[in-house]
Amino acid sequence: MTAAALPRATARVAEVAEHARSAARRLAAAPDAARQDALHRIADALATDVDAILAANARDVAEARTAVERGAMSVALLHRLVLDAEKLADMAAQVRAVAVLDDPLGRVLRDTLLDDGLALRQVTCPIGVVAAVFEARPDAMTQIAALALRSGNAAILKPGREAARTARALHAAIAHALAGDAHVPADAIALVEGRDAVDALLGLTDLVDLVVPRGSKALVRSIQARTRIPVLGHADGICHVYVDAAADGAMAVDVVVDAKVQYPAACNAVEVVLVHRDAAHVVAPLVDRLLAADVSIAACDRVRALLPDAPLDAATDADWRTEFGDLRLALRIVDDLADAIALVNANGSHHTDAIVTDDERAAAAFLAGVDSASVMHNASTRFADGFRYGLGAEVGISTGKLHARGPVGLEGLTTYRWVLRGRGQIVADYVGAGARPFRHALRSSPPPTRPAR
Amino acid sequence: MTAAALPRATARVAEVAEHARSAARRLAAAPDAARQDALHRIADALATDVDAILAANARDVAEARTAVERGAMSVALLHRLVLDAEKLADMAAQVRAVAVLDDPLGRVLRDTLLDDGLALRQVTCPIGVVAAVFEARPDAMTQIAALALRSGNAAILKPGREAARTARALHAAIAHALAGDAHVPADAIALVEGRDAVDALLGLTDLVDLVVPRGSKALVRSIQARTRIPVLGHADGICHVYVDAAADGAMAVDVVVDAKVQYPAACNAVEVVLVHRDAAHVVAPLVDRLLAADVSIAACDRVRALLPDAPLDAATDADWRTEFGDLRLALRIVDDLADAIALVNANGSHHTDAIVTDDERAAAAFLAGVDSASVMHNASTRFADGFRYGLGAEVGISTGKLHARGPVGLEGLTTYRWVLRGRGQIVADYVGAGARPFRHALRSSPPPTRPAR
Repeated sequence: MTAAALPRATARVAEVAEHARSAARRLAAAPDAARQDALHRIADALATDVDAILAANARDVAEARTAVERGAMSVALLHRLVLDAEKLADMAAQVRAVAVLDDPLGRVLRDTLLDDGLALRQVTCPIGVVAAVFEARPDAMTQIAALALRSGNAAILKPGREAARTARALHAAIAHALAGDAHVPADAIALVEGRDAVDALLGLTDLVDLVVPRGSKALVRSIQARTRIPVLGHADGICHVYVDAAADGAMAVDVVVDAKVQYPAACNAVEVVLVHRDAAHVVAPLVDRLLAADVSIAACDRVRALLPDAPLDAATDADWRTEFGDLRLALRIVDDLADAIALVNANGSHHTDAIVTDDERAAAAFLAGVDSASVMHNASTRFADGFRYGLGAEVGISTGKLHARGPVGLEGLTTYRWVLRGRGQIVADYVGAGARPFRHALRSSPPPTRPAR
Repeated sequence: MTAAALPRATARVAEVAEHARSAARRLAAAPDAARQDALHRIADALATDVDAILAANARDVAEARTAVERGAMSVALLHRLVLDAEKLADMAAQVRAVAVLDDPLGRVLRDTLLDDGLALRQVTCPIGVVAAVFEARPDAMTQIAALALRSGNAAILKPGREAARTARALHAAIAHALAGDAHVPADAIALVEGRDAVDALLGLTDLVDLVVPRGSKALVRSIQARTRIPVLGHADGICHVYVDAAADGAMAVDVVVDAKVQYPAACNAVEVVLVHRDAAHVVAPLVDRLLAADVSIAACDRVRALLPDAPLDAATDADWRTEFGDLRLALRIVDDLADAIALVNANGSHHTDAIVTDDERAAAAFLAGVDSASVMHNASTRFADGFRYGLGAEVGISTGKLHARGPVGLEGLTTYRWVLRGRGQIVADYVGAGARPFRHALRSSPPPTRPAR
């Protein structure tokens, strides 16, 4: 589909995407040193342009403050918008950190000798064009730009309106850094603005290969509902900790408290705690520790009957499938492991769920039976994170099952191609009577640093 | 979403899908021996039920014959529908062949020691519920059932109306084979019928994880356009062979003729041949061989000027992006390698494209610059096939870039989960002042037989 064939409203975005696709094709052939160097130049440009960026940000922030006063914006969003010299330096450091990761491209995932002189390799390569849609958070913009370029992809950035001036200044710095680069063209990082641009991007199924939303659950849901382009992300993080009959009580309390309190707004924080009825003795110390940490508790009838004097709320049906995102959780006594697994699968968001137990068979059954991106035994759900998992950088956390699942590293922005090299072999020689047999010899195991996919 | 929440028309299919999802959860925990054994029992049942299956098929075929007479069905479709004892035995053998493939589940893709006693593994697991929509071809039904079960997935099969009775008889044999199996429940292979069932399936984004269409381009396109569930497949196979300036002429002719003639209806057959102007001497012998093989040729003006007396059609714009699927191809002289790459990317279907050349730099530029699932140097495009690639069985060929690309083996029906096992570790110990550092030690390289993904 060409830009000319589209309605005028989307034609401009389609043209940007076509330039991004051309840039992506050039970038895909760029040597790693050129991609790394481009990132360092972008980091340099953030320092060079510090005054212009902060001035633009100050204007966005001033407008946002009046929006907050009018009640049209949350204070949290305003805070995420604010830049200063230190935060900008952090953003530059993040870009440099992506530059020093292992090259995700050109890795051989499989190497098969089909026959003498007929060699097949499955090799990682960029996806192509990534559209990133985000709210506030200027740091997300430089981070996704760095991740995209490092993995050989073009990115089309669509910031929220509240960050428009900041985004333009950051984009100018990036464009300046890439100007004249033959390997990493400036078109590889594009900026589009306006609500119409999102609709236009989400409709470009032939030009945009992946959409990465960065922002609220509402943003992610809205994007997932509006496009047939694959979306890398997750709307909900409804994580469980199940305290088994054979749990170490002190460990169970530590894990639950960490999973809730250490950073309650995180998507991998626990929202629902299930306790086996034979571990009911854990409930009282658990509730004590949670209340002491200012965690409010929505409890089932059995828990409330057990602790009639504790300040527990009666849990509603909705509480079992709610991402509180705050110092609150739902607590429930269950009859057995099978009940726990069924509740996790039915009510959770397939993000991260943990069992605490000293019973290896119960652990194995939980880990096998729970259909989530991360399943854990005797560890806090808060470990589900690209940096903690050792992936180096995190593109996002996916609750989808295809392509990439759970914490997604740089490899989530790569795909692979099959490269067959021969000496003129033809298929006719390998079929029918007297057919030449294939050897199909796997030639090497992939290197230990191969990508996570 | 529960069945009760849906309009009545789709509620029945949703209920089937919910049962399939439950069966898939049980199946995911089934030992490999149970999955293999189930496949062998299905193969046995095809033999046991031979009379019933062939009788049902005879009724479908009789009805199809009158449809062909009325001009309401193609002869090709009728031929694909017909079963006999020999073909049924082949189908059973295919099922047994899937049973003896390496287990695609439980493979460790990455094994990282995050810290002492905190071990992270990325392990392959089933996707869940696969919906297979197909036309005619009863063999596709048993094949997809076998592939799904072997990889721990439930499958919902939606056959074409023309194969309704055959499908019911085959499904009865499968259900009979699985009856009473605690590990591989009969609900894991479900049958739904009717046009409404397709629409219902395609809307079940929460219950169906993957759609596998098996049939015409029109079927694949229609399904891709109607669902937000990932679709594994390809609509078009517009493959190119580019004959470079430095091509061995005899090799170029052999490769093009094989790629067109060996099986012209295949998706990996060549449709467009591009010849570098400095290799124009290859055009005459190439045209001779193609015409001798009954291939008709749509040629550009330069080719026709070169061979004014040859029976060549004048190529139209549409010919450069047409899947002829028959003994016909489009032939064009281009100015250089860059033109060839640009034409392949612009007009092709990102399926399989090949260069013939003795110039290693030209080959490298083509292989890096062409954005297709399979790229080849000095080999026929017809090699792009799961069996020829050594994948053992082929779920399909994907021209999508995410999840699986090109020929897809059994691994295309798997995903992975992250399994973290600890001793009660909490994240609070790994953040802030005095934070415990992660070790992030990669512990083993994956085995050489690891899946292709």
